[in-house]
Amino acid sequence: MTRMKIESLGEFGLIQRLAKRLKVGPGVIRGVGDDCAVVEGPPMWYHLLTCDLLVDGVHFRVDRAKPEQIGWKALACSVSDIAAMGGLPQFALVALGVPRGCAVERLEKVYAGMQRMADTCGVSVVGGDTVLAPRLTLDVAVIGRVERTRLVLRSSAREGDHLMVTGSLGGAVTSGRHLTFTPRWAEARALGDRFPLHAMMDLSDGLAGDLRHLTAASRVGAVVQEAAIPVARHATVKAALTEGEDFELLFTAPASVSPALLEWAAGALRCGVTKIGEIVPAKQGVTLRRPDGQGIPLVLSGYRHF
Amino acid sequence: MTRMKIESLGEFGLIQRLAKRLKVGPGVIRGVGDDCAVVEGPPMWYHLLTCDLLVDGVHFRVDRAKPEQIGWKALACSVSDIAAMGGLPQFALVALGVPRGCAVERLEKVYAGMQRMADTCGVSVVGGDTVLAPRLTLDVAVIGRVERTRLVLRSSAREGDHLMVTGSLGGAVTSGRHLTFTPRWAEARALGDRFPLHAMMDLSDGLAGDLRHLTAASRVGAVVQEAAIPVARHATVKAALTEGEDFELLFTAPASVSPALLEWAAGALRCGVTKIGEIVPAKQGVTLRRPDGQGIPLVLSGYRHF
Repeated sequence: MTRMKIESLGEFGLIQRLAKRLKVGPGVIRGVGDDCAVVEGPPMWYHLLTCDLLVDGVHFRVDRAKPEQIGWKALACSVSDIAAMGGLPQFALVALGVPRGCAVERLEKVYAGMQRMADTCGVSVVGGDTVLAPRLTLDVAVIGRVERTRLVLRSSAREGDHLMVTGSLGGAVTSGRHLTFTPRWAEARALGDRFPLHAMMDLSDGLAGDLRHLTAASRVGAVVQEAAIPVARHATVKAALTEGEDFELLFTAPASVSPALLEWAAGALRCGVTKIGEIVPAKQGVTLRRPDGQGIPLVLSGYRHF
Repeated sequence: MTRMKIESLGEFGLIQRLAKRLKVGPGVIRGVGDDCAVVEGPPMWYHLLTCDLLVDGVHFRVDRAKPEQIGWKALACSVSDIAAMGGLPQFALVALGVPRGCAVERLEKVYAGMQRMADTCGVSVVGGDTVLAPRLTLDVAVIGRVERTRLVLRSSAREGDHLMVTGSLGGAVTSGRHLTFTPRWAEARALGDRFPLHAMMDLSDGLAGDLRHLTAASRVGAVVQEAAIPVARHATVKAALTEGEDFELLFTAPASVSPALLEWAAGALRCGVTKIGEIVPAKQGVTLRRPDGQGIPLVLSGYRHF
C-alpha cells in the first residue's frame, strides 16, 4: 500500500479526506467546510462553533512574540471565524499545552493578553484544559451565535456580486500585525445589519487561496482587479495575495447595494471597505486582472500549512 | 523577581492562578473549576462546554497505541466530562496537530476511532482545525446540554451523603483500558433519572486526588472504606487511589436513597456501582479507613500533570 504523507495533500486536502470519515447527525446546519460549524440554537438563533490551534514555531515564536500577544492572537483567530459568519462570540475554552520549566509569570501574561482580547468582544473564557506539551500550544474554541436571518456562509456568493475586503492586506507576519490584529466582528455585524451580505470568510491564508475557497464553495468564478487590492503599507501585491494571517473579511454583496455599502463604510468603518472585483460564472474561473488589462489565472498560492 | 516554574504549582495550582486573570460575564453559570463549564441555554436547559488536550508522549504514545484508540480516547475524555455533569454530549470540534511526514492513513484511522466513539453517544464532529505540530496533538472540545433540574456539580456534596463509584479502579494505563474505556454518560443519565445525585465528577487523576477536589469544592470531608474500593483485576488499592485515567464516575447521593440506588444499579448497570464511603463535616478532613479500622489521612497523591 502506498503511504501518502500529509505534505502531498496540503491542509485542505487533508481536512476533506478526514471529514469523509465523519457522520453528521441532526441539528447540524453546517459541518466541516466553513469558518465555523453551525448548529441549531433557540428559535431565532444558530450556535457557531470554531477552534484554532496555535503552536510555538508554527503560528508564533515564543522568542519573538510577547506572551500577551500570543494570548491575544490565540483568541482573536477564533473570534475572527465567528465574525466571518456574521455572528457574535460568547464563550471560549482554552486548551493550554505547556513545556516543562515554563515560568508561571509567562503564562499569566498569555492569559492577560487573552482576557484583553475577550474584553474587546464580550467573550467569557469559561474553562479549558492544561497539560504538559513539548512546545507552548494553545487551542481556543469559541462558541458564538447568529440570528438565523443573519448567517453568512462562504458558499452563497452569486454571479454579479461585488467582491469586497475590509482593511488592507499583506505583510501581516513581517509587520507583526498577525499578533495584534483586531478581528472584524463589529464591522461584520454593522455591515450585516444594513446590507444583504451574500458570502463571507476571513482572510487567514492569503487572498488568492482564500478566494479559491469562497468561489469553490459557492460554485462561481471571480475577477479581481489587481489595482484595487488595498495593499498594506510596506507590503506588495504578491504579499497581499499569498502571505495570509491578515484576518480581514472577504465578502460579496449584490451589485445593487454595493455603492451604498461602500459609501456608508467610508464614513462608518475605520478599517475601510474596498471593492476588489466581481463574482462571475464558474466556467470563467478565478482571474487576476492586471493593471494593463491582461487577465491571468489566480493560482492557488495561499499559505500552505504542510 | 523570583520566577516560579509550573512544576512547583502543579496542574490545579496553575489553573487556579491563571483563572484569576479571567473575568466571567453574563450567562455563565459555572466557569473554571468543574468537569465542564455551564452556560445559559434554552429555558429548560444549560449548555455544557469542555475540552481535553492530548499530546503524544504525555497522554498516549503513538508507538504503543493504535491510531483508532487515540481517536477514541481523545473524544471519550471530553464525553466523560459531560457525563460527570449529568449531561448529554452533542457536538465536537477537533483540533489536530500533525507532525511533518505523518501518513494520511494513520490520521484516517484516528478519525475512524473518533467516529466510532461518536457513534456510541450520538455526537456529531462538526469541525476543527488542522496544523503542523512537533508531536501528534489532539484537542477535542465537546458541547453538550443538561436539563437545569439535572445538572450535577462537584460542589454539591452534603454531610451524610453516601460516596459511590461506577466500575472498578486502578491499572487503567498498564492494562491499556485508558485507551478503550467507555465514558459513563448513559449510566449518569440513568442514575440521574431515578435518584437525586448531589455531587459528581469523573475520575481522571486517581480516587485520592479527585476526591480531594470534590470535597474541597463542596467544603466537606469524607471517609473512604479501603476494603470497599472496587479495585480492577490485576490492580492494587494504591493504583486505584493514585494512578488515574479510570474515567469512572465518583458521586454522592443522600443516605436515604443509597440502598435503592445500589439495588437498582446492581440489576440495571453492567459497570456496577459501589458505595465506598460517606461525606462528613469538613473539619474531619478526608480519611482512608484501613481494613483494621485505623483511619489515615488520604493525602493528595493523584496523577500530577507537571
